[in-house]
Amino acid sequence: MQIFSKRIPIFCMFLAGLSVQAKQPTDYVNPFIGTSNFGATHPGAQYPHALTSVSPFNVAHSPELNKFEKDAAWNSRVYVDDNAFLTGFSHVNLSGVGCPDLGVVLLMPTTGELELDSEKYGSTYKNQQATPGYYSNELQKYAIKAEATSTQRTGLSRYTFPAGQANIILNLGLGLSNETGGALRIVSDREIEGSRTIGTFCYNPEDVRPVYFVAQFSQAAKRFGGFKKMPKYTGVEGEWIGHNDVIKPYPNYRQELAGDEIGAYFSFDTQADETLQVKVGISYVSIDNARENLKAEQPNFDFEKTQKAAEHAWNRLLKRIQLKGTDQNKTLFYSALYHSLIHPSIIQDVNGDYPLMQANRQASGPLFGNIKNSGEKNRYSVYSLWDSNRNVHPLLSLIYPEIQSEMMATMVAMYNESGWLPKWELLGMETQVMVGDPATVVLADTYLRGIQDFDINTAYTAMQKSADTALNNPLRPENQDYLHLGYVPVDDEGPYDGSVSSSLEYYLADFNLGVLAQILDKTKDAKKYLARAQGYRKLFDQQTGMLRPKKRDGSWYTPYDPQLGRNFEPAPGYIEGNAWNYRFYVPHDIPGLIALLGGEDNFIAQLEATFATNNYDMANEPDIAYSYLFNYVPEQAAKSREKVSALIKQHYHNTAGGIPGNDDAGTLSSWLIFSMMGFYPTAPGIMEYAVVAPAFDEVKIHLSDKYYAGKPLIIRPIEGEQSNFNGKKLDKAFISHKLLTQGGELRLAN
Amino acid sequence: MQIFSKRIPIFCMFLAGLSVQAKQPTDYVNPFIGTSNFGATHPGAQYPHALTSVSPFNVAHSPELNKFEKDAAWNSRVYVDDNAFLTGFSHVNLSGVGCPDLGVVLLMPTTGELELDSEKYGSTYKNQQATPGYYSNELQKYAIKAEATSTQRTGLSRYTFPAGQANIILNLGLGLSNETGGALRIVSDREIEGSRTIGTFCYNPEDVRPVYFVAQFSQAAKRFGGFKKMPKYTGVEGEWIGHNDVIKPYPNYRQELAGDEIGAYFSFDTQADETLQVKVGISYVSIDNARENLKAEQPNFDFEKTQKAAEHAWNRLLKRIQLKGTDQNKTLFYSALYHSLIHPSIIQDVNGDYPLMQANRQASGPLFGNIKNSGEKNRYSVYSLWDSNRNVHPLLSLIYPEIQSEMMATMVAMYNESGWLPKWELLGMETQVMVGDPATVVLADTYLRGIQDFDINTAYTAMQKSADTALNNPLRPENQDYLHLGYVPVDDEGPYDGSVSSSLEYYLADFNLGVLAQILDKTKDAKKYLARAQGYRKLFDQQTGMLRPKKRDGSWYTPYDPQLGRNFEPAPGYIEGNAWNYRFYVPHDIPGLIALLGGEDNFIAQLEATFATNNYDMANEPDIAYSYLFNYVPEQAAKSREKVSALIKQHYHNTAGGIPGNDDAGTLSSWLIFSMMGFYPTAPGIMEYAVVAPAFDEVKIHLSDKYYAGKPLIIRPIEGEQSNFNGKKLDKAFISHKLLTQGGELRLAN
Repeated sequence: MQIFSKRIPIFCMFLAGLSVQAKQPTDYVNPFIGTSNFGATHPGAQYPHALTSVSPFNVAHSPELNKFEKDAAWNSRVYVDDNAFLTGFSHVNLSGVGCPDLGVVLLMPTTGELELDSEKYGSTYKNQQATPGYYSNELQKYAIKAEATSTQRTGLSRYTFPAGQANIILNLGLGLSNETGGALRIVSDREIEGSRTIGTFCYNPEDVRPVYFVAQFSQAAKRFGGFKKMPKYTGVEGEWIGHNDVIKPYPNYRQELAGDEIGAYFSFDTQADETLQVKVGISYVSIDNARENLKAEQPNFDFEKTQKAAEHAWNRLLKRIQLKGTDQNKTLFYSALYHSLIHPSIIQDVNGDYPLMQANRQASGPLFGNIKNSGEKNRYSVYSLWDSNRNVHPLLSLIYPEIQSEMMATMVAMYNESGWLPKWELLGMETQVMVGDPATVVLADTYLRGIQDFDINTAYTAMQKSADTALNNPLRPENQDYLHLGYVPVDDEGPYDGSVSSSLEYYLADFNLGVLAQILDKTKDAKKYLARAQGYRKLFDQQTGMLRPKKRDGSWYTPYDPQLGRNFEPAPGYIEGNAWNYRFYVPHDIPGLIALLGGEDNFIAQLEATFATNNYDMANEPDIAYSYLFNYVPEQAAKSREKVSALIKQHYHNTAGGIPGNDDAGTLSSWLIFSMMGFYPTAPGIMEYAVVAPAFDEVKIHLSDKYYAGKPLIIRPIEGEQSNFNGKKLDKAFISHKLLTQGGELRLAN
Repeated sequence: MQIFSKRIPIFCMFLAGLSVQAKQPTDYVNPFIGTSNFGATHPGAQYPHALTSVSPFNVAHSPELNKFEKDAAWNSRVYVDDNAFLTGFSHVNLSGVGCPDLGVVLLMPTTGELELDSEKYGSTYKNQQATPGYYSNELQKYAIKAEATSTQRTGLSRYTFPAGQANIILNLGLGLSNETGGALRIVSDREIEGSRTIGTFCYNPEDVRPVYFVAQFSQAAKRFGGFKKMPKYTGVEGEWIGHNDVIKPYPNYRQELAGDEIGAYFSFDTQADETLQVKVGISYVSIDNARENLKAEQPNFDFEKTQKAAEHAWNRLLKRIQLKGTDQNKTLFYSALYHSLIHPSIIQDVNGDYPLMQANRQASGPLFGNIKNSGEKNRYSVYSLWDSNRNVHPLLSLIYPEIQSEMMATMVAMYNESGWLPKWELLGMETQVMVGDPATVVLADTYLRGIQDFDINTAYTAMQKSADTALNNPLRPENQDYLHLGYVPVDDEGPYDGSVSSSLEYYLADFNLGVLAQILDKTKDAKKYLARAQGYRKLFDQQTGMLRPKKRDGSWYTPYDPQLGRNFEPAPGYIEGNAWNYRFYVPHDIPGLIALLGGEDNFIAQLEATFATNNYDMANEPDIAYSYLFNYVPEQAAKSREKVSALIKQHYHNTAGGIPGNDDAGTLSSWLIFSMMGFYPTAPGIMEYAVVAPAFDEVKIHLSDKYYAGKPLIIRPIEGEQSNFNGKKLDKAFISHKLLTQGGELRLAN
């Protein structure tokens, strides 16, 4: 019941939206931004925070037409704008993520004699169009117009065919995921159901799960069947077998078909310009739920209605921030906001069912109760927390606190279900990707921002478990050493050692836990964790001015080259970066670091040197806030303004390559959003934003009336004067979260 | 309900059987007969006409230990007595069939650290024992005693483990079938369900279907998980993936897992001599039905009760023929009878559901009603009719007419469902193996024998459709030519042309249809079909005395070597044989052939020459009745006696190699049964048996009281006198079916 009430507002929006004449935020969104230059976004039909999406898939086969083939390199993208050979439309997709997964349940329309080999049925395409909730192109090989739209849990595709034989192929073999294997059953001449294994995300720890689907066609197929790639037979068997190492069709087949490379086809006889539609329901719980999702969210084949509903769902979110400024900047901004509102995404079905966290990994616990119900709330998934703790969640906390609240409740539920908070959670699987203890950072930071309607007591227990468990701690595998030495030692971990990176993440997590303990009146805890957070000083090397890998015996790791790691070569001590990238990564105590560096002058000199020597990487997270650090020396704040402005100009564009690297589930986009609004949360757990100049004449934020003042926050530039808030000059180059969320006018010096 | 009533008699038998002290027929059965020398029987636990069986599987891997590897040759066997490396116990198995299929759903017990690669976990074994419904061995690598028994639709395995870690592996990758692909789900720590694709029987026409299973353990597993063979990754992916081209375990995994090579494992901690049992329910309809079968037929884990029930089910059938004679002969006879009562086997579930004939191949018809219910009757499957029409069905008609009746009803139902009678039907799939129109032969012959309680009108319509449809006739693909020319011409078919073989089968079918028409008072039809049956004369080549391939223009195929084909090289005109093998294959008109051959002397001379020149093949069907043809010249009847007796001695033994070749679903065994009883049905449609001497002092057949006289038929040898029936001398070397089924005493000259 709650589900239907969740859906109704969407359609009310749609009806209300009909009378709106002005340009909507979605009109500015360019979904192609980030589809080149390893941005790893997709241009497909996408609903906000949705479980499903429909993306063109162009990363298989054809080295001539595809610059980036999925198997030829580490490729985390279902669509690359540099590529040209399309082999279908995938129905579950990640956005801005650095490891390959999902990109499965591929539909492909073709014409003429049936060809079931994706290498042969693929096509070039032209006239691509994409807006939030809509994608279309023309498949040149077949003269088919392909269009897609989607809801939260369903995709709807519309194919306009020429006259003749039209085919729609569902391929469960092809996909981006490193996993293989699927099962299907043709239910009728207009319906097919099945599942496809996904997982082994980042090749570690190789956990898997099925994604379930039900696909229904707007017309009954004239002919249909399954297909399967046959193994390679040799010797006598090879002489006899009809289909050897090739795809074998099974005409009219309609029982279960399972295997590594299977699929099904449906053929129709079409008139010129006849359209066929396919709707696909997705679930991570069961085929029955996929069908229920389809029935609830896509009862008919109303493409325009679905598209409008998606567009209005987007506008409902995007218009919380209204902008005055250039169209170019609005495009950059709203496209970034769009990309920040995809993950975490919901995983519960329309009936509330979702797969238990770590359901397929738990040896103990509720063995076979691997499905739970989310009740009234959304259940979220795809938590790229090492990335998103830095700015995605602070952005959501500020603009969409009701969503952030549900995301926090989900994280606490994950602890209840699996015994641990998430680190890099994907569809109920803990993938153990990256380092640190970021859930603690996000939960504490969120609570501190005033979003407190989640179970903070359980959350606190969970954070403490992570902070204090010495052995067999999946979030902090090196915690025994960390607790004993006050840092993670470099010993014994080889070239891929991440001892400094891990330590710095733990200090930040401990700081956040300490600050949270303070406001929860757990004074003793607060003291302990805040003291631990100062442990970074042990890694500060006076000689190099770097946070340097240290051995178990207290001696520095040598030989030591702080430049090492610039080109992704192994740099002992550092994960995804080098010493320079990490040298200011103590966001919770920049003043302390300034002192260690001998004072403000050297701090500023070293900060400038970081940029000057090209040791700042806009596309990576550890140093993502560095351009704002000049603000810690108030008279140098102009340098932050200049640097931020310059970085925007240099790295963000209204082009496919317009995100400087993996968007990291919205992290690079969220940097842009804050930066264009003129302020940035430099330190989780510290309720201040560093201010720069806004990129707009006016930014108007509709502050939540539940969590915040309920009135607008307006940001405008001010020429030749000091920054002020509601007329009161800022006493430093920061403004507090508390002040900001009271609403009013923030005027920022240019 | 009818299902339970079907089952009850079994257990009544069992209870009644407890008081029986005398040696039972099953005591003579050696299930190992036929497990070498390409007999293709299996020694596993087998219930009469059962849907499932549990056989040791020793045809994979280890060229050192396995003489016949399943992929190294055309191997249709799950077990070969010459082999020594066992990799599990398969739960669906064919018996005596010449093409590989089934041999899947493999269970393997192991001990110690888990090993999931069948090449590594396989073991040698010793102390094999097999009786009807029971098989056991000791796995030497693990010191495990493995035992199996079965019901109609379930297998029950009992493993006795040493102390330590015990593992039970369910492998859905490994199997005899040429097909791959399966899906499974671990339902709980003591249950798993799933399906496995089978089919592509004889590599043609590559139809497939799933076999469904539910397996339950007698104890909850301590640890469990799924596993899957990962693809081979190369390049960057190969560097990163943890499991590359190897089997990957998924501990605790309990959602759907699908793929080409998947499985699951269950581990236990056992004391010394602790037993674990696994029961497996099988269905060709659904997982739910597999579970229902398990619940109905195997509610507990009572191994002894199950074994006894199987044994009594066998005795109930076998004891319809009681023997006096040597134990050696009883062993040969009852083992042959055992092998003749496996196929056709039932396919309906305990609730009556079965998969519609050709369900997955029909483009039209009741599209998605692919499941039907058999009601009160058994639904049969695995009709190897090219083989079994010759003697298996006549044997069933004589001894088990109530079973034969249900088998005929099934064949008529197959026509109703698919539009055609079966030819080589396997589990609802028409595999199109071999040539001719054997269903017509069997249906007519059965009706003529007095089994008339099936729908003869529909059967007749079906036979006529087959006989008279010129084009697109799957049973008689060359029927247009045959109808036009009176024979199938050799033209255009290349070295694998089977024009003579096909023609001869059509003549025999037309003869049977003609005789049936006669007794159905369809005089005009009778005349037509009987005239067609004489068409063999067109293929008789006066010059060579052979039935010779003839071209479309009426000229003989040249060059022509009647010996060609002896060594399985292609022999244009003949399928599975050469001209000699086929030269007397007009069973319906041997007198006519005698005349064509210039009279009895030359006929006898040529018949003798067939044996003398080694052109008689005991292991093949076209010539299987030739040793009885001397009886057509009464004064030469002793030659049949000598020849039959010699063939038994030469080819049938109480050894693994004791069947001269593929048992062909009981055809070679049925030859032995008739031959040892002293009579043989040389011509389907002609209600006479050629008589020889019995191999026993007495053969006592309990004739059906529903179809026949209801009193015993006793066969005894008679020394130095002419054969007689109830004291009346036989007027030729044949006795009529009508006379025989009146019961009484048949005394046969030695």
